[in-house]
Amino acid sequence: MPAEDLMERVTNLCKRRGFVFPSAEIHGGFRSTYDYGPLGVLMLRNVKEAWWRSMVQLREEVVGLDAAILSSPRIWEASGHLANFTDPLVDCRSCHERWRADQIGDTCPNCGSTDLTEARAFNLLFKTYAGPVEDEGAVAYLRPETAQGMFVNFANVLQTTRKRPPFGIAQMGKSFRNEITPGNFVFRTREFEQMELEYFVPPDQSQQWYEYWCAERMTWFTDLGMAKDRLRLRPHDADELSHYSTGTSDIEFAFPWGWGELEGIANRTDFDLLAHAAASGERLDYFDPATGERYVPHVIEPAVGATRAMMAFLIAAYDTDEVDGEARTVLRLHPRLAPYSVAVLPLSRKDTLSPVAHRVLSLLQPLFMCDYDDTQSIGRRYRRQDEVGTPYCVTVDFDSLDDDAVTIRDRDTTEQARVPIIDLIAELGSRLSH
Amino acid sequence: MPAEDLMERVTNLCKRRGFVFPSAEIHGGFRSTYDYGPLGVLMLRNVKEAWWRSMVQLREEVVGLDAAILSSPRIWEASGHLANFTDPLVDCRSCHERWRADQIGDTCPNCGSTDLTEARAFNLLFKTYAGPVEDEGAVAYLRPETAQGMFVNFANVLQTTRKRPPFGIAQMGKSFRNEITPGNFVFRTREFEQMELEYFVPPDQSQQWYEYWCAERMTWFTDLGMAKDRLRLRPHDADELSHYSTGTSDIEFAFPWGWGELEGIANRTDFDLLAHAAASGERLDYFDPATGERYVPHVIEPAVGATRAMMAFLIAAYDTDEVDGEARTVLRLHPRLAPYSVAVLPLSRKDTLSPVAHRVLSLLQPLFMCDYDDTQSIGRRYRRQDEVGTPYCVTVDFDSLDDDAVTIRDRDTTEQARVPIIDLIAELGSRLSH
Repeated sequence: MPAEDLMERVTNLCKRRGFVFPSAEIHGGFRSTYDYGPLGVLMLRNVKEAWWRSMVQLREEVVGLDAAILSSPRIWEASGHLANFTDPLVDCRSCHERWRADQIGDTCPNCGSTDLTEARAFNLLFKTYAGPVEDEGAVAYLRPETAQGMFVNFANVLQTTRKRPPFGIAQMGKSFRNEITPGNFVFRTREFEQMELEYFVPPDQSQQWYEYWCAERMTWFTDLGMAKDRLRLRPHDADELSHYSTGTSDIEFAFPWGWGELEGIANRTDFDLLAHAAASGERLDYFDPATGERYVPHVIEPAVGATRAMMAFLIAAYDTDEVDGEARTVLRLHPRLAPYSVAVLPLSRKDTLSPVAHRVLSLLQPLFMCDYDDTQSIGRRYRRQDEVGTPYCVTVDFDSLDDDAVTIRDRDTTEQARVPIIDLIAELGSRLSH
Repeated sequence: MPAEDLMERVTNLCKRRGFVFPSAEIHGGFRSTYDYGPLGVLMLRNVKEAWWRSMVQLREEVVGLDAAILSSPRIWEASGHLANFTDPLVDCRSCHERWRADQIGDTCPNCGSTDLTEARAFNLLFKTYAGPVEDEGAVAYLRPETAQGMFVNFANVLQTTRKRPPFGIAQMGKSFRNEITPGNFVFRTREFEQMELEYFVPPDQSQQWYEYWCAERMTWFTDLGMAKDRLRLRPHDADELSHYSTGTSDIEFAFPWGWGELEGIANRTDFDLLAHAAASGERLDYFDPATGERYVPHVIEPAVGATRAMMAFLIAAYDTDEVDGEARTVLRLHPRLAPYSVAVLPLSRKDTLSPVAHRVLSLLQPLFMCDYDDTQSIGRRYRRQDEVGTPYCVTVDFDSLDDDAVTIRDRDTTEQARVPIIDLIAELGSRLSH
């Protein structure tokens, strides 16, 4: 399918089936912000849950954190964001539109004029005031990344958890960047959701852990069903590297418009801890009782965009095929990511089937995220579930009243199997955990 | 225990054990904002998960939503927040501090002066600018509640999900209110987390659903182990009611400083849908194909503060008793809310026990949030787990090498039972689901 078609089909599906809505749409929309609808919120939760599970729950040496969004100017002064977190901005002198200098050529994309100002630095931090007096002392910034919340809590975490390097702090949450030109649907938005790990290691182990996390994070995507040929790990060139980084690689996805970053894995050295130590006067280091040595850990940071990752999983999962001579759209999402794990479908809306169908629903709901649909023909309902990636449909038919069994239908193969209701939880549990 | 002591002990525990840290503490703190530490983030996730499970996962008629925080002024104009979401503000003419008029007497709490200005309306919306031009068209507000995101998406949800009244839209997420005087630890903060349901019903059923949700939400707290005598349902007096509400009740908790609101359940009538319909020109109503009637649903809204609820659960769970003649602190948290479900504790740090202890850890991690601790004496480690509410400790001892079994120790009774490792998942699963 041509790339433009794919992008249009995915965005249409997102709107039509309730994954993503433009924010405040009834009021004319608002500045490239988006709301996640009934299916989008489920899928976004699943993406985040898969990350949290692999980064925190399954790891002895990683703990979580949830720091505030409203944050002190001192954090961003220490981190360098107030001085350096900028994009080059130009004005068109003819139509007065503003653009990111590195994203346009010599002419204004709006009016075609070449009469542009020199580029100047535009800071991407969102500013507001906290408290009843709008003065310098009340300035607050919306965090542009979750990372700094973990650096400023390094000593708190060390003291309260007794971890020792190598150990990590993980955080998921909203961040805000005042992008000059957001775009490409939910790929670049001013409000977005991040999943970041700061992994603190002895300095002489930093290269090995950097390589470990590059490999580990690629595996996370492929374990969740992403085809290897849609991903690449691209090491930054020397001139792309931040001044403090000794190595950074991006995990990129083949979006319909080209390769785009999903995740960055950076060796940030001791830059952040030293910067916050210098600005605060606090000691941000680690004393190793085994060796008697004191050192400032180096940091490996795998940082991924949750909303971008969700978009990539949706695009990669989008497929069309034929079933019984009819075209269908199917999202081949990994079962861990699909909004619904199971749909319960009574064959008919007649009252005779409703009680047993609801009994099946009540049985499954505590364990699986379920949809229930008794509208339209069974064939159309299968198509509706295929289109949103539901791995299994459970159909309750008139035979169910006699044999106390139901039919499980597989999204990908469309194969059906009869299963006694008493075995249903075990059967679905086993299929979904593969 | 005297109320002040209890409050001090809980806040100390929160800091010392990594539940809650003051934000940007190394940089001098910041305006009553807080970060949730390694244990706090786990417990907050559990509170939210328990709400989501009961409100979305287990309900056929409720769907989720995750709307943007950065939001259009048109939303807050339509909702009335721009005009009316204010608190009365007074200035002290002597020391120039600002106060909420309804929270102080006739004298300034700072300097004691009675020379105060008249109260004026102070709007609680946080304002910022989205985009590279700071003009009126770029004004954005941080949402002060998640509710409006659900009203403006009413038509989108109706179209994409085929729900019909009574049905609900549920949302959890950060909201921001520029409180004049935040306080009482995480009870009143400018950034906080909400869990809100908007439940759309036929107008003639609104009173019965209002009563249903009042009862249902009380049950949610008590099912999670909250003692009934620490809660009360307080109906608003006529003069407290919002002008649009025909009934509102607060679920209040007996905080150490007095009764405080955890949740409000409001019958909001058709106020919100009509307001957004009028402002946008869109039709926000429901056509019932069964009766051929078209109507604007009424809304019942149970809205709870997640961070407040977490604080109430912590306070209610805090207990002290004696074990083997020694005082201990124990958080009697419901197993669904405890940061860790299980702690794996090798009796000794010797290398002989580490492999089997790690085998047990790897076995449990996919199913339960686990801690692993091999520091200090076993007695002190039990105390550490009791203090953070871990329901079960699994101890690996030297006999484990022979019998391939471990000891499960119960937080509340301190009773111990020997369990073969092969039965451990089933045994813990059964105990934790009670």
